[in-house]
Amino acid sequence: MKIVNLDHLSANPLLPEVKQAMIDAIHADYANPSSQHKSGEEAAEILDRARSSVAALLNCSNPKEVVFTSGGTESVNHAIKGVAWANAEKGNHIITSNIEHNAVIRSLKRLKSTGFKITSLSVDADGRVNPQDVADAITDKTILVSIMHSNNETGTIQPIEEIGRITRAKKILFHTDAVDSVGLVPIDVNRLNVDLLSFSSNTFYGPTGVGGLFVRRGTRIWPLLEGGVQEHNKRAGTENLIGIIGMGVAAELARRDMESRLSHVSGLKEKLLRELPDHIDEYIINTPADASLPNLVSISIQYIEGESVVLMLDDEDIAVSTRSACATGSLRASHVLLSIGLSHADAQGTLVVGLGMDNTEGDVNRFLKALQHVVTTLRNISPLYQKHKAAQA
Amino acid sequence: MKIVNLDHLSANPLLPEVKQAMIDAIHADYANPSSQHKSGEEAAEILDRARSSVAALLNCSNPKEVVFTSGGTESVNHAIKGVAWANAEKGNHIITSNIEHNAVIRSLKRLKSTGFKITSLSVDADGRVNPQDVADAITDKTILVSIMHSNNETGTIQPIEEIGRITRAKKILFHTDAVDSVGLVPIDVNRLNVDLLSFSSNTFYGPTGVGGLFVRRGTRIWPLLEGGVQEHNKRAGTENLIGIIGMGVAAELARRDMESRLSHVSGLKEKLLRELPDHIDEYIINTPADASLPNLVSISIQYIEGESVVLMLDDEDIAVSTRSACATGSLRASHVLLSIGLSHADAQGTLVVGLGMDNTEGDVNRFLKALQHVVTTLRNISPLYQKHKAAQA
Repeated sequence: MKIVNLDHLSANPLLPEVKQAMIDAIHADYANPSSQHKSGEEAAEILDRARSSVAALLNCSNPKEVVFTSGGTESVNHAIKGVAWANAEKGNHIITSNIEHNAVIRSLKRLKSTGFKITSLSVDADGRVNPQDVADAITDKTILVSIMHSNNETGTIQPIEEIGRITRAKKILFHTDAVDSVGLVPIDVNRLNVDLLSFSSNTFYGPTGVGGLFVRRGTRIWPLLEGGVQEHNKRAGTENLIGIIGMGVAAELARRDMESRLSHVSGLKEKLLRELPDHIDEYIINTPADASLPNLVSISIQYIEGESVVLMLDDEDIAVSTRSACATGSLRASHVLLSIGLSHADAQGTLVVGLGMDNTEGDVNRFLKALQHVVTTLRNISPLYQKHKAAQA
Repeated sequence: MKIVNLDHLSANPLLPEVKQAMIDAIHADYANPSSQHKSGEEAAEILDRARSSVAALLNCSNPKEVVFTSGGTESVNHAIKGVAWANAEKGNHIITSNIEHNAVIRSLKRLKSTGFKITSLSVDADGRVNPQDVADAITDKTILVSIMHSNNETGTIQPIEEIGRITRAKKILFHTDAVDSVGLVPIDVNRLNVDLLSFSSNTFYGPTGVGGLFVRRGTRIWPLLEGGVQEHNKRAGTENLIGIIGMGVAAELARRDMESRLSHVSGLKEKLLRELPDHIDEYIINTPADASLPNLVSISIQYIEGESVVLMLDDEDIAVSTRSACATGSLRASHVLLSIGLSHADAQGTLVVGLGMDNTEGDVNRFLKALQHVVTTLRNISPLYQKHKAAQA
């Protein structure tokens, strides 16, 4: 039976046009874009074309503000560490939120160990940061605010525009981790008032291991990777040209098809949420109804373990996840779910459904039916659930 | 006319088998190797297979000691900065050489700006570091020695094994930038006595933007990219699986075909050196006859500019370079060539010929003939050369 992929937060399949562009690039054997000869210049032009496509997706008018990286994690590390180091003489205080991705958390933890002070803001039950909290946390030592654009576990979209107005007024650099947003929802680096924005190609059906960092002109930042003069001296290293070409094509298509994709995945999301009560009960939806990713539904199913649900659905060829693939192997409950107020037990019973362009209504039907069966089976053997039912009776 | 590529130091074409493996990977739409479900496990197995191939190429018995990166530059930055930061409490002194790649130089310059002390050793006329100089430079504050395996401008291979014996005896970490060696000449991380070794896939006809860092078990090092648990917690970020698959196949072939490739490129190199005097005079060969890369010839052609030679050869569809593509745009004479004792003028007249598996004797013939024509033309209009000739007459 065909595998139903409802784990698009972990990996998206490549679009046919992206595949073709990458295959053509493989056959082309491009030279090094930094080489002085004709073949080098040809490669440099191809690199520029991809940069323009990606810049357009961000509504960034100067493609030189786009730095290609090896993916979202590098972009985030580059943004946070690069800004902290370059501005350490001005101050040592950084503001973030409690629900960031591990790339942000661990970069900040590292900086903290070397003397930086971190303020981590709490979020409301929808997983949202209050812009006023950002304003209140700013001190004369604050050099950077890093708040994610959308959360990869709940789908919550943050009020980045409002936060950006505050940071801009106070002349403090603002980075947003938009890895799960760029290519999926409209992004405009100017409207958002951000100085740095991290993104990843695979979110918009480009290859993994390729991404980028928007760095507004004039932003004081150190490179993370130093050496050659590539990427306008902001990121050294011979480029992953095949991957970048794939990302360029993916960006072009994401921009062209933004509306139809939005309507496709949000239609499936609505169907799933509408029909879920007909299949299971006693669950919590962690994804806010307003301002959330159109393709993500986080469901905490009470009295059972999310890990067991994932494994049993996997046996029925349905792929979902309990959280970010980057956190696989961690036995601790998700810091994001605890931050929005879930109990440890409910957090452990959480599934993240990530819808994609390749999903159909049939996939949602198959998922709901299988979920009903799995949840019934697991609850039948759950002492917690039995106790709960006995108490109700 | 077919382009003759004698710029293999800047970029190598992909092998047909590597192309096919990457194309198959593109079609396969692998899941995220960190995902918990079956598709994720399949991707994780494929990642492991590539890691084993690469480990075998380094004669490394524990594949977990191989960390995949976005290329040589990331590997070098990771090794140098990661070791320096993680061992800063033990000491702040690092030893290197005067002829390293910019990735090493700029990483060390950055560390210097934050309080580390750098000793940069000079080299002899062959571009070689004297191991005794390393021993003499070690202090009780020394935490790292970083000396490249082979030089990308002269082809000089360093006495890494001897230097490694010294660092091992003194229990100091030793990194070698082997970006231009791995896959081209036999490398054995154990015989070399290194703790860290940087390499790049494109050197052995794998894709660009992919590489790795050998990190001996027990080496104290901080990750450069932090976030998820990928690469055994040594390098976060969703993997560039398509590129890594290509590198794995390239590594396997490099190991299998090492001898035949060595004999192919060194045969062409010998021919070029043997026949060069029949085509031009008054030049200096900067590549030592013993212990140098089998595919590299550095020629300083006196009384003319290397840049002009590159451009004129380019017009005849022959690609060569004056130096590392990573240093393109720099107008200064190469620090490597000045370090081996060349005058500024001779350094500026230098060509780096990088031979590859796709080159033929016909390519060398075409190059020599074209070079003869170009050099004659340029010298005819060179006031320097005219003056020199008048003085001789």
